[in-house]
Parts: sequence; structure tokens; C-alpha cells
Amino acid sequence: MLDLYHAEPVANSMKSLLCLKEKGLRFTSHYVDLLRFEQHSEDFVKLNPNGQVPVLVHDGAVITESTVINEYLDDVFPEVPLRPRNLAERAQMRVWSKFVDEYFCPALSMWGWHLMVRRVAQSLSKNELEKVLERIPLKEQRDKWATIAGESFTQAQLEESKRKLSVSIERMEKILARSEWLAGSSYSLADINSYSMVAAVPRMFPEIMNPQAMPLASAWLDTMNARPAVQAALSMPNKVPE
Amino acid sequence: MLDLYHAEPVANSMKSLLCLKEKGLRFTSHYVDLLRFEQHSEDFVKLNPNGQVPVLVHDGAVITESTVINEYLDDVFPEVPLRPRNLAERAQMRVWSKFVDEYFCPALSMWGWHLMVRRVAQSLSKNELEKVLERIPLKEQRDKWATIAGESFTQAQLEESKRKLSVSIERMEKILARSEWLAGSSYSLADINSYSMVAAVPRMFPEIMNPQAMPLASAWLDTMNARPAVQAALSMPNKVPE
Repeated sequence: MLDLYHAEPVANSMKSLLCLKEKGLRFTSHYVDLLRFEQHSEDFVKLNPNGQVPVLVHDGAVITESTVINEYLDDVFPEVPLRPRNLAERAQMRVWSKFVDEYFCPALSMWGWHLMVRRVAQSLSKNELEKVLERIPLKEQRDKWATIAGESFTQAQLEESKRKLSVSIERMEKILARSEWLAGSSYSLADINSYSMVAAVPRMFPEIMNPQAMPLASAWLDTMNARPAVQAALSMPNKVPE
Repeated sequence: MLDLYHAEPVANSMKSLLCLKEKGLRFTSHYVDLLRFEQHSEDFVKLNPNGQVPVLVHDGAVITESTVINEYLDDVFPEVPLRPRNLAERAQMRVWSKFVDEYFCPALSMWGWHLMVRRVAQSLSKNELEKVLERIPLKEQRDKWATIAGESFTQAQLEESKRKLSVSIERMEKILARSEWLAGSSYSLADINSYSMVAAVPRMFPEIMNPQAMPLASAWLDTMNARPAVQAALSMPNKVPE
């Protein structure tokens, strides 16, 4: 029994959806509506006390954190291997995934909150917002909601995040000058874990990532977009208006 | 051939030293003197462009990031296994190690910079400091040095980090109420990756971690301190004055 609790096929939900699709695993999809704050509901917080998607439930074991879920899937279902056989490349896969989690993703996420989640927060009455805040289990998440419902991040914070996005794509470009994929000669979780983040950059900041400035990263993204598993993951329900 | 470039047996250097000692692996130790800024030297930055310790070199492969180094060591030298055999516990090991890297360690690190590295920064002349800053490869590290050489972190930032340290130890206490070790029934990289961070807390903030308030975390630390591998790692060169 394999169950995935996830939101739209973007950001961290996409990471685990794509891993499942690449492995051709059958799973029960449980859509968690972030716009209705289902991730903070009593039932969901029982599953993941942090109130965050995605969550994998496998034969009763609850696995959180998309990066960890993907290594778990490769541990348990190794038939379609998604970690390099070469152990130094496997380490590179983990270094890159760590960089995505700690640097690239938070930088992109700040802009996502500023441009998109902010609209949701501002559509709520003061009363409604208070009710939402009350139910958020992590203080860091509560603070972020309070920030975007108010004045949002400062211009300096947003610029710094944009700089980090540039650094991230430049780093990708350098890696792809040495190897076909982000962790060496084989397609791996390093590629899967980056896909949904990288895909957002040319749409949000075409000046940072375009085929002239970043030819290798752009070609990598085209190759990723053409993968059947990516297409299958992207065709999952998406209730967010364009 | 196994070479470790590391500083004192504290913080991230300790993580990899302890893993090597637990596995009983012979390695060549290369001491990197952080007080002389050897981590920013031309030679070292060739090895790790981020200018950070520890770095493992194994048969020519360069592995960075202590958490990744430790999984690599367990991949390559599985004779003394340090990852749970149960794959859900192995995922828990990764979730906890990720929490240490992203939450616990940065919170503790801010206090380390404020209380210790700050003294180093302030002992430098303006000219010397500029020379140090010039050679630091990561902007984030340069900014941190500039911060502590100046007014340091704000009281609000320091308090927030202290709150995070409390949260971290409370979370440990909860885990240890359910299982003997931090990732289930076997000693693992989750314990190794936390040791040097946790060991600093009762010394720095006895009000946060003491045997009355946090009996299970305190007992865990006693058990860790008694391990021969911990003692062996702690006896590595330590040139920092008490």
C-alpha cells in the first residue's frame, strides 16, 4: 500500500510525484488543498506534525520531507534505480539535493510567497487570517504568513533571493558543462529534486535563465520536460488558477 | 587512500571524525587551522570551492558536506553499518539529520559566531579583516564575518536562535521517549550527526538542557560521551584555547 498526500504538481509535491512516476509505481493520490489550508487540519497534522506536504505512507510507515521520501522510494523499490551506482556520484547527488533544499528552494520560495501566496493572505479578512494562523503548527510558517499578509518581505530580502536564484542556475550550468546530468552520467534524484524549482525560473525571471545566457541549463530543462514521467506528473490535478 | 581535511573535533568536523572512528577506518588527518583562515587558502579552495571543512578525499574522489560524507562512508565501507536496516528508520535518520543541518546547527552556529568567532574577528585590524574577507569564497560567509566584526547579530536574532535550540532539544527528548536512539532501535548517523551540536548545549545553555528538564536527552549525551569512538575523536588535535 502506497499513499501520497500532496498538492499541485509543483514545488516539493512535484518532487515526490515525479519520483513515483519515474519508477512506474502505483499509488493512491490524496490531494491536499493548500488554498483551503487542509495541510493545517487536525487530521493532516496527525500525519505530519509540521503540517507540510508531501507525505508518503507505505505499509503504515509515515515518511516526510520530499528529499527523504525520494531516497526512501529508491531504497524500497530499487527496480528502476534513481541513484548513481558510482558512490562518488551518489554523494554528488546528495550534495546537490542539499543545495536545492537549503539555498535554491528557499530563494525561489520567497518569491512564490511574495507573488502568489500573498494574494491568498490578502484576500482573507483579519478574522479569517487569525484563524488560519492559529492552526499553523510551525512558528516559522506562522511568521511567514504574518509577513506576507502585512508588508511582505523587504526589497533587500527579495533582491538577495533573486541573487541566490542566479547563483543556483549558474552553478547548474557549470555542472552540466562537466556531465550530462546533475550528478554525473546518469539521470538521478538530483535531476528529479531540481526539476520543479528550475522549471519556475525562466517563467518568473527570464533574464536569469534563457537559452542564450544559460544554454546547458535550458537544454536540460527541455530534456526534462520531454520525459514521459514529467508529463504524467504534470497531468495530475491542478486546482490553482493560472 | 582516505584523507580527511578537518578542524578541531567540534561541530561539522566532529561529525565526520566520529563516523570514521566508529567504523575503525584508517585515514590521514589533515588539520586545517580555521584561526589562520587556512580554509580560505588557494590550495584548500581548489579542493572545496566553498572553503569549508570537513572534506574527504577517497581514491581521488572529493566529497564535501559532513552529512553527505557520512552517508558516503557508510556506502563505501558498510562493514560497521551506521544506517538502520529498517528502511523507515533509515528515512527517520535522514529527516533528523536534515533537521540538524537546517535548523539546530544554524541556531547553535549563530551563538558560536557571536561568542567565539567574534573575538577572532575583533582581534584583527581593519586591514587584516579586509584581507580575510577578500578571500572568503561564499558571500553568505563573508556577510557573517562582516556582521560579527561589526555590531554582531541583533538581540532578537540571538533570542530566536536560542528558542530554536530549545525546540531542538525538546524534539530530541520526544524522540528518545519512543526509541533508544534518534532513528529507532539502532545507533546511527542520526546520533553521530547530532553529537557535537548537542554536546555544546548544556555547556552554553544549562537552562535549556540539564538532567532535570531533559532527562532522556541528557542520558543520551552521557551514553554518547562514554563511547570509545567519541573519546578517540575528542582526542584529536585541538589548538583552540578553552
